[in-house]
Amino acid sequence: MTFPWPEPGTPLHDVLTPMPVIDEDRVAANIGRAQRYMDQHRIAFRPHIKTHKLSYVAKQQLAAGAVGLNCQKLTEAEAFADAGFDDILVTYNILGASRLGRLKALNNRVSALKVCADNEVAVAGYAATFGKDKPLSVLIECDTGGGRCGVQSPRAAFELAQKISASDGLHFAGLLTYPAPGGAKAVQSFLTEAMALLDSVGIDCPIRSNGGSPDIWQAHLVPAATEHRAGTYVYNDRSMVRTGECKEDDLALHVLATVVSIPTEGRLVLDAGSKALTSDLLGFDDFGRIEELPGAKIVSLSEEHAVTDVSGCTADLPRIGEQVRIVPNHCCVVSNLFDRVVFHRDGAVTRVEKLLARGTVW
Amino acid sequence: MTFPWPEPGTPLHDVLTPMPVIDEDRVAANIGRAQRYMDQHRIAFRPHIKTHKLSYVAKQQLAAGAVGLNCQKLTEAEAFADAGFDDILVTYNILGASRLGRLKALNNRVSALKVCADNEVAVAGYAATFGKDKPLSVLIECDTGGGRCGVQSPRAAFELAQKISASDGLHFAGLLTYPAPGGAKAVQSFLTEAMALLDSVGIDCPIRSNGGSPDIWQAHLVPAATEHRAGTYVYNDRSMVRTGECKEDDLALHVLATVVSIPTEGRLVLDAGSKALTSDLLGFDDFGRIEELPGAKIVSLSEEHAVTDVSGCTADLPRIGEQVRIVPNHCCVVSNLFDRVVFHRDGAVTRVEKLLARGTVW
Repeated sequence: MTFPWPEPGTPLHDVLTPMPVIDEDRVAANIGRAQRYMDQHRIAFRPHIKTHKLSYVAKQQLAAGAVGLNCQKLTEAEAFADAGFDDILVTYNILGASRLGRLKALNNRVSALKVCADNEVAVAGYAATFGKDKPLSVLIECDTGGGRCGVQSPRAAFELAQKISASDGLHFAGLLTYPAPGGAKAVQSFLTEAMALLDSVGIDCPIRSNGGSPDIWQAHLVPAATEHRAGTYVYNDRSMVRTGECKEDDLALHVLATVVSIPTEGRLVLDAGSKALTSDLLGFDDFGRIEELPGAKIVSLSEEHAVTDVSGCTADLPRIGEQVRIVPNHCCVVSNLFDRVVFHRDGAVTRVEKLLARGTVW
Repeated sequence: MTFPWPEPGTPLHDVLTPMPVIDEDRVAANIGRAQRYMDQHRIAFRPHIKTHKLSYVAKQQLAAGAVGLNCQKLTEAEAFADAGFDDILVTYNILGASRLGRLKALNNRVSALKVCADNEVAVAGYAATFGKDKPLSVLIECDTGGGRCGVQSPRAAFELAQKISASDGLHFAGLLTYPAPGGAKAVQSFLTEAMALLDSVGIDCPIRSNGGSPDIWQAHLVPAATEHRAGTYVYNDRSMVRTGECKEDDLALHVLATVVSIPTEGRLVLDAGSKALTSDLLGFDDFGRIEELPGAKIVSLSEEHAVTDVSGCTADLPRIGEQVRIVPNHCCVVSNLFDRVVFHRDGAVTRVEKLLARGTVW
């Protein structure tokens, strides 16, 4: 099976669908805007690669001034290390002998590798694996209201930091959080309190890493943070428009889809199903917004079809075989479904990029 | 990056997570049970490859007596043709010059290729592409209440069938439907009426293809159908248990996951997020059922984490680093996230299989 990936110069309407298509200029603008904001507020910026999983985009982010990359899984970090990136923060508890062995190998070849921990089991695993010849840098993940992982209090962070500091093979690198939306105040208060406790026993806390695209433009409301991590901002999506974090013109990723059936006057079926858009709702009650069809609603997805109610649509309807562009609810999970994505400018393909770490959830 | 895929014989608890793990014996039992039922009722059985995308499983399905395979996209059909399968039905409107050219090439090398159409644009494309030297077999998709694709009435099917029959390059192969759950009566009535119309002008309608795992054991309630298509039945999932189409012991696919964090007494975080389980709810209000933790609830997924409320859980809780098995809401979309899956028997890995057509949504 050889799939006909489009050559540079191919008009977008000749690209086979469903396909994520990414606007080169909007990506560049999104990268520039975020970096300028972080520079202005003297916050180090660490883009999360989960959204694009592409060396091509990561290089642009670093060229703009990012300090390094954020990966979520060890396998992603290995893939980006293979591609030559050398400042990588893995925001995950890495557990078990097999993974710890790989982490040690990675730490030997990546100059600025950092991982995180929110519990003693993870710290004990790191401590048993690393030695003072090449210590591992560990940040403590703090739950500042996000309700995912993380130690629950500044005191718990302080206690875990002491364990890290006491280990010859570990370097306590700081604190890290992924807050609830609008959580700046809670982050600031958590970090300040934990830093005071650490300071009282002379433990240095060089990095205080805050995160999230949803609150990217509120990063300066956490002066205690030294860096910010964000992924979605690079492409943006329907959820980012809803919260006002980006404008329509900042949407860099669309899923190109084709009308494959018009069974009834009010029903139009597209070739982008849950295997192209995912079922992520993120609070919406439908599965994406169609640029060309205001008022249309993608009411249900099967795996390879999007059933669209166009009864409330005010625009001229496309015909069978014609394309539309869908703004996905959540761009990161869309990227992860495709081995390659298509970039474009001025209506024509500029390049096809193979994802470095698609589906590497380990 | 070289990922340590487990060797045969590896204990399941040494398999890195998150990972779909598939019980060899349950797959064999599911294949056997469905095929015996279809044989008993003299219904040809055509498994849908979307659920597994594996040559290994497709071969077992054919060995048990299936007449051929069902693919949803042309790219899947190409991949399975490359693997040597020769009776393939593609249940999709295939549109556009590029795809039609590939379809023609495929028809030249697959002895029993069949596609479908529910509109005149698709039929016109087929008719313009194929000649009488190697005609294309086309089934008409009928909407019998499923509300996806399909012509809306037996008369519309009849009219489209006449167009297919009138083309030298096309062979009218029959009717096809994916009904609404519990739709046996509607399917029977639609097929009977359309067949009578076709018979009145002497058009043969050899295949009447009904579909769906949700109604797999009701297939015999549609005597007008000659074949049944189903995918999910081979692994089964939480949605199939809910509707009573399978028992707990028929669940062949689990997502193996590891506890990576226990931030609070009632909250446990697993390493299987939406990039391992998908966000498919299928009517549930949580994202999967954990075998070892009755009463636990996977309340939210981020991309690499499952936040689980264990406050109502009656079992002993696992510790950080320990594994659990998750029954996903929907198994087909889980397979599609992984390039490889792990098979097992008696607690040990039997093989790792590479998916033939993961993510090939074209």
